[in-house]
Amino acid sequence: MAKKILIIGAVALGPKVACRLRRLDPNAEITLLDKDNIISYGGCGIPYYVGGDINDLEDLYSTSAHVLRDTDFFTHCKGITVRTQVEAIAIDRTAQTVTIRDLTCGSEEVLPYDKLVLATGATPIRPPVPGCDLPQVFTLANLHEAEKIKSLMTSGKIGRAAVIGGGAIGVEISEAMTDLWGIETSLIEMEDQILPTLLGKCIARIVKSHLEEKGVRVLIDEKVKEITETGTRGCRVETSNNIIEADIVILATGVRPSTGLAAEAGLALGSTGGILVDRRLRTSDKNIYAGGDCVELRNLVSGENMLMALGSLANRQGRIIATNIHGGNSHFDGTVGTFCMKVFDLGLGKAGLTYRQAKETGFDPVYAVISQADHAHFYPQSELLYISLIADRRSRKILGIEAAGKHGEAVKARVDTVAVLLRHGVTVDEICEMEAGYAPPFASAMDAVNNAGNALDNILAGLNVPIDAHDFLNRFRLGTSKVLDTRGEKEAAPFIDKYGDRWLNIPQNELRRRIEEIPRDEELYLMCDTGPRSYEAQVVLTTKGITNTLNIQGGFAMVRMTDPEFI
Amino acid sequence: MAKKILIIGAVALGPKVACRLRRLDPNAEITLLDKDNIISYGGCGIPYYVGGDINDLEDLYSTSAHVLRDTDFFTHCKGITVRTQVEAIAIDRTAQTVTIRDLTCGSEEVLPYDKLVLATGATPIRPPVPGCDLPQVFTLANLHEAEKIKSLMTSGKIGRAAVIGGGAIGVEISEAMTDLWGIETSLIEMEDQILPTLLGKCIARIVKSHLEEKGVRVLIDEKVKEITETGTRGCRVETSNNIIEADIVILATGVRPSTGLAAEAGLALGSTGGILVDRRLRTSDKNIYAGGDCVELRNLVSGENMLMALGSLANRQGRIIATNIHGGNSHFDGTVGTFCMKVFDLGLGKAGLTYRQAKETGFDPVYAVISQADHAHFYPQSELLYISLIADRRSRKILGIEAAGKHGEAVKARVDTVAVLLRHGVTVDEICEMEAGYAPPFASAMDAVNNAGNALDNILAGLNVPIDAHDFLNRFRLGTSKVLDTRGEKEAAPFIDKYGDRWLNIPQNELRRRIEEIPRDEELYLMCDTGPRSYEAQVVLTTKGITNTLNIQGGFAMVRMTDPEFI
Repeated sequence: MAKKILIIGAVALGPKVACRLRRLDPNAEITLLDKDNIISYGGCGIPYYVGGDINDLEDLYSTSAHVLRDTDFFTHCKGITVRTQVEAIAIDRTAQTVTIRDLTCGSEEVLPYDKLVLATGATPIRPPVPGCDLPQVFTLANLHEAEKIKSLMTSGKIGRAAVIGGGAIGVEISEAMTDLWGIETSLIEMEDQILPTLLGKCIARIVKSHLEEKGVRVLIDEKVKEITETGTRGCRVETSNNIIEADIVILATGVRPSTGLAAEAGLALGSTGGILVDRRLRTSDKNIYAGGDCVELRNLVSGENMLMALGSLANRQGRIIATNIHGGNSHFDGTVGTFCMKVFDLGLGKAGLTYRQAKETGFDPVYAVISQADHAHFYPQSELLYISLIADRRSRKILGIEAAGKHGEAVKARVDTVAVLLRHGVTVDEICEMEAGYAPPFASAMDAVNNAGNALDNILAGLNVPIDAHDFLNRFRLGTSKVLDTRGEKEAAPFIDKYGDRWLNIPQNELRRRIEEIPRDEELYLMCDTGPRSYEAQVVLTTKGITNTLNIQGGFAMVRMTDPEFI
Repeated sequence: MAKKILIIGAVALGPKVACRLRRLDPNAEITLLDKDNIISYGGCGIPYYVGGDINDLEDLYSTSAHVLRDTDFFTHCKGITVRTQVEAIAIDRTAQTVTIRDLTCGSEEVLPYDKLVLATGATPIRPPVPGCDLPQVFTLANLHEAEKIKSLMTSGKIGRAAVIGGGAIGVEISEAMTDLWGIETSLIEMEDQILPTLLGKCIARIVKSHLEEKGVRVLIDEKVKEITETGTRGCRVETSNNIIEADIVILATGVRPSTGLAAEAGLALGSTGGILVDRRLRTSDKNIYAGGDCVELRNLVSGENMLMALGSLANRQGRIIATNIHGGNSHFDGTVGTFCMKVFDLGLGKAGLTYRQAKETGFDPVYAVISQADHAHFYPQSELLYISLIADRRSRKILGIEAAGKHGEAVKARVDTVAVLLRHGVTVDEICEMEAGYAPPFASAMDAVNNAGNALDNILAGLNVPIDAHDFLNRFRLGTSKVLDTRGEKEAAPFIDKYGDRWLNIPQNELRRRIEEIPRDEELYLMCDTGPRSYEAQVVLTTKGITNTLNIQGGFAMVRMTDPEFI
């Protein structure tokens, strides 16, 4: 008899399971259920639809051959039964049935299953802030909400926006509003940096500076206290430090796995609140699989379980679930948290743990930050890459990488190569020797990633005694310490004008013969354009017994990206 | 007493050893020797200098801070002694000395060493073809030759060029001549494809088509028989099939490691002719290190030794040699042959073995070819990526990847992620689950690399019965077999016009109900835009007992890239 497969949830994971399973098993009776009437859409495209990069909502639920992925498509093209606008309200694990309710008429029905797949996704979190339910306050839960927001934009009624939450969605939607619509946008984050779960402070500061350069007002370290209505259609967001007037408020304070159905059926949930699954993506009931945003995953670097709502993970898990339902033995081992995004003209990416996460997990993290051209420096149109590479001091194991730069694809190339190695537990040495493709239009002979590894190797060896641009700026602002600038006189001149005798300049090629000019009694920050010359200067000075120096990682390039006002 | 370090060769590896060692050891006496008067230049930049992307020759031997890397720079900035225009003529390993000859005056001198580094590089091969020594015939051996070629270009005296050798340098120089200078260029390769040691036939055909589209005449399977002078300054290249008139001939027939000095000193050479080194990059004499283009390296996929002349490998080896000379223990395990290049608007890359190389090494190779947008298909400005992924049938181990596409950085990102995994001996399954960064502007939720893995997994499982575009075109041209086109009617119409009843069209969503129309008695090639729908059609047909089908890998996108004249 044909196997009955029931899949609850028809976005990303659900359709992937259904389509793959149909290809593996021509006879299975496969039914996809969803509460919504629009299914199988690319939710990650929502910010680009709101921002106008994508014009038609339908593009988000069409195939690459421009065919709508609707009920008809699944029925005729894929041979899969789809039932939309139905809600699964209970699972009877003993009887192997699911009770569903038709949301258009309220009638209920009981569907049997041999294997059940939970692809229930996640729900936006509405923080317990008064006013979160005002009509001006939106989440980006689904395409309907996206459509409402976009129609407000196109109507021209929105002049000012407040986005609450500086995570990926908050940053993307801030760009969408500012870029095409010219809306005065304030992005509010309660942590002391944006993208706090994704980036360490150095790369996060680059992103913040870039957002500000593009006109987004970024408020960090600010808690939203209340949202109130003003006049006919405006509202006011009160934070711990500010009052922001806005015509629209977007809540981007994260999502929570939708696990009600699973919990009521007695399936095990994990410590982070997601459904617990094994490597085969089975729940605690061997006839029920789960994947996508509703499950928790093993972080392969920290070893701890985590939530990671990402369409790419969902799709890959969907394939694995289908293989396993069909009797195969396919594994999803976990994630190293690889991530990338575009923020205006900047691409950024990360994998593994941030410094803070590494510390919290019990590692002894140490990191290098470098600035380097993404192409051979003699090849035109190169852009700087900013890379932070983190390792554990004791084991030399790589824990994470973060990067940003104007050539987004070049950033992605660097992050991804380290990302895929993370699960192999590689050390700094393998990054130094890493063999990525080299040609002048695409890389330097010593690639930026290799150099990030080299810098970290030198730091671990005690040859390079670093300070990052963020810490340097904080300390320099306190007022006494000096900078030794090893660039040419012309480059240093405006800095000497601004900072006077706190700014010493000895060009690199004069350093060996002008050692006597260097003060030995106070802390000295060494700076060049991007870092290599100040590192070399530090080595020379150490040799001469001058050890009161800190080498500014990534040089002036990194300082400027961290604080564009520095000069 | 200070250690005496002698380094023979001052391009790429040599300067890297010198500079790193100086940082590790402030007291060592480091001397860099070179035959040339220009040193420490980026040789890989030569084609871009000839082609005008780089204007000044000096850019190729300047630092990223625009300081000339000349003798003065090494002396004052780096603390390294440089002697140019001297040739090392003999090594006395017992006395630990090197005899050098001053090329300007002929005087000889004996220099002692504690550690010697051979960075003698490689020399262009001049094939035994009559006329190879004519004044119109150039190699790209060094900057002086590059300068001569460029001054001929700028003088306007060159209208037609013949490039002999379709490897990387031949392709790059063909682009350089055609693109900026509008020179009628013929590229001649004796093998049956261009880039024969780097690419398999599928991706190589894409590159060939692109070269031709840009105006380069590409002649494959043609052996050069003779070069003769014609008139005052022209010449004539006679091949097995053609006679090509040219004002300049560039020999790009590969390089050979420069090992004369090493061989005469009795150092062991390997089977490929390069100097034999261990993982610490020591030669058979423990006081002599060697690296860069003059050594042979372990291919970490095939296990065999190979030559790989690449500035990026040289630089990384240089760092390792310096660490080891200083008493460290750093390893260079070998290479997986990662490579990338730009060809006009196309980026391409590869790592590991080609199908042919895998077969020769004794593997049982099987490959998938896919075409897929590099970004989410709904995100604007995506370009197709063409990827070929090769695995061993028995072990499922990945043996190689090749890719091409218009977004070169996106190509690099895909190739590099697989490249760095090759030395870890990963299987197809890890590529299916590979966790590269995902965001709509940079990738699809199921990334192209994942899908290359999925396609290969399906081929290995027998679900996908493939034919590549190259083989399809060869067979279709023979005249009898038919295509089943599963795209829409509009897309199929021009093909039906051209190929008549050899071209059947059943759109994907009608396939399940029109099965009866499909001929069961002849071979049927299944085609869609990029491959997924024809694969699904094949699965549906197999289910219905129709097994006489072959699925064209990468769909029409790949067919068109292989033969732009097909429609």
